[in-house]
Amino acid sequence: MEKKYVVGVDVGGQTSKIGVVDARGCVLAQTVIRSDVYGTDADAFLEALAVAIKGVIKESGKEGDVRGIGVGAPNGNYYTGEVSFAPNLAWAANRAVKFAETLQEKMDGIPVSLTNDANAAAVGEMTYGAARGMKNFIMITLGTGVGSGIVIDGKVVYGHDGFAGELGHTSAVRSNGRLCGCGKQGCLEAYCSAIGLARTAREWLEMSSEPSVLRDVEKITSKDVYDAAKEGDALALRVFDYTATILGRSCADFIAFSAPEAIVLFGGLARAKEFLYEPMLKAMNENCLKMWKDKVKIVFSQLKESDAAILGASALAWEL
Amino acid sequence: MEKKYVVGVDVGGQTSKIGVVDARGCVLAQTVIRSDVYGTDADAFLEALAVAIKGVIKESGKEGDVRGIGVGAPNGNYYTGEVSFAPNLAWAANRAVKFAETLQEKMDGIPVSLTNDANAAAVGEMTYGAARGMKNFIMITLGTGVGSGIVIDGKVVYGHDGFAGELGHTSAVRSNGRLCGCGKQGCLEAYCSAIGLARTAREWLEMSSEPSVLRDVEKITSKDVYDAAKEGDALALRVFDYTATILGRSCADFIAFSAPEAIVLFGGLARAKEFLYEPMLKAMNENCLKMWKDKVKIVFSQLKESDAAILGASALAWEL
Repeated sequence: MEKKYVVGVDVGGQTSKIGVVDARGCVLAQTVIRSDVYGTDADAFLEALAVAIKGVIKESGKEGDVRGIGVGAPNGNYYTGEVSFAPNLAWAANRAVKFAETLQEKMDGIPVSLTNDANAAAVGEMTYGAARGMKNFIMITLGTGVGSGIVIDGKVVYGHDGFAGELGHTSAVRSNGRLCGCGKQGCLEAYCSAIGLARTAREWLEMSSEPSVLRDVEKITSKDVYDAAKEGDALALRVFDYTATILGRSCADFIAFSAPEAIVLFGGLARAKEFLYEPMLKAMNENCLKMWKDKVKIVFSQLKESDAAILGASALAWEL
Repeated sequence: MEKKYVVGVDVGGQTSKIGVVDARGCVLAQTVIRSDVYGTDADAFLEALAVAIKGVIKESGKEGDVRGIGVGAPNGNYYTGEVSFAPNLAWAANRAVKFAETLQEKMDGIPVSLTNDANAAAVGEMTYGAARGMKNFIMITLGTGVGSGIVIDGKVVYGHDGFAGELGHTSAVRSNGRLCGCGKQGCLEAYCSAIGLARTAREWLEMSSEPSVLRDVEKITSKDVYDAAKEGDALALRVFDYTATILGRSCADFIAFSAPEAIVLFGGLARAKEFLYEPMLKAMNENCLKMWKDKVKIVFSQLKESDAAILGASALAWEL
């Protein structure tokens, strides 16, 4: 008899979330463990993870009925099953960790599938969320960084080496662009991540003396800019306009690549839909070829925020 | 018994080339007809094309042994089988022509597969050329315009609407870019096509009084710039450097999308390999993420120029 449940694991820099999920995307049981207390000892983390997974399976009452485990992790490689050179994970910061293989052994052979967090989110969105029924879409994750998961003909694009879909590091600004964390200049991530948005606000406040409620905030975050925009702060509203315009312009180029049905936005910053949607759509339509004008949708993730990461990762396991 | 031959048709603005091809890519017989003498009468062109195809099949001695007909045409759509709004084809300039369906009827039911010329070239390169054995690559065609065919997991990317792969119309220059034929500014095509290259030479000659053999040429074409570069003309060499740098920089972004094994260059301008390769590779490696530096190859088409267009289109028919 076919096993009816999967486990989703979302590995983050500070915590890792684990859940047992059914075919309709209901999370039956879940738990969280720390990711950041194992120093450089990858095996210790994987051991703790396996123990936690076994615990939550037991709690769900579905022992023996778990088909596979899907894992989304920064720099997770679908082909090799490795997590490699992930700056935010001390145990994988300077080397490649055989993640999928080791976890599968510790889980007594339950199959493990690994990919990066943005690809996991794309699979989740296609299986349970805003992209249900779509075969061609581009998911952009707007968080601390800008990630992406590209789906063509119903399949995530992994490319020759398993690392495809790094749209956060395409050029949004070609000359004198901001320095990005990756070492390049002008990357989309340097402008359209939560950090990039806050940086725009800080730069603009320094450059002018325009009044803004943000002048009273000490270390401005994207949340502060969002709150200010909600209060109608003119500068904060323009920061969102600018950010959305850069994003829309870049998306026009992405459309020329894979002609998607929709761009799907996901992640913390995507909650600012009311400030992003209009200027982004305008910039996208102004910068794409005529045949795509007013044809490509922009949709915002419909996954319940608290479950999204687990669902995304778990969706991978259905393909095992 | 399985039929062992295919027909390739390359529809161009002035002429259309037709050939009967075997599984190893040998052209057994070929012919050429005019594409530009039928005015807006698409059916008259299709009728002439069918007559010519029948003639060349007869000449090859393979009647009854033709498996399918592959057609590459400007704005050819793989999904709909239509050639639509192709500015260089009077009979399809202002409307959508049911090309594949009509030709198949006229050919007594031999299956017809249609795509655009750049996608046909990509399939040709994968089946017979420089991309043999590759499952992930991006073909860039450097001709009058800049086209592209993207292959992921061994399949051409058509996208949601069949028009994917318009990389010539992604932004190479973001501010004050050149006006492109498509109406947008700063497109890759405006810089890296044969026309774009000649334009760079003309602009630079106007802007300076630097000596150059190109000053004696009345209407500078890309061929003139190539000849001047071969003579060691400093300005012409810098024009190639500049063109190749813009192309390499854009390719760095394309790599972030689909993580290809190689960028394959095809078309008239790609013959200037000696002037394009080094600066393009340098710009590509300087602008891509570290994990792709020195990993992605640039290869030049290996298809025999005279057969290339027919082979590319014919390769499509093997998938029928």
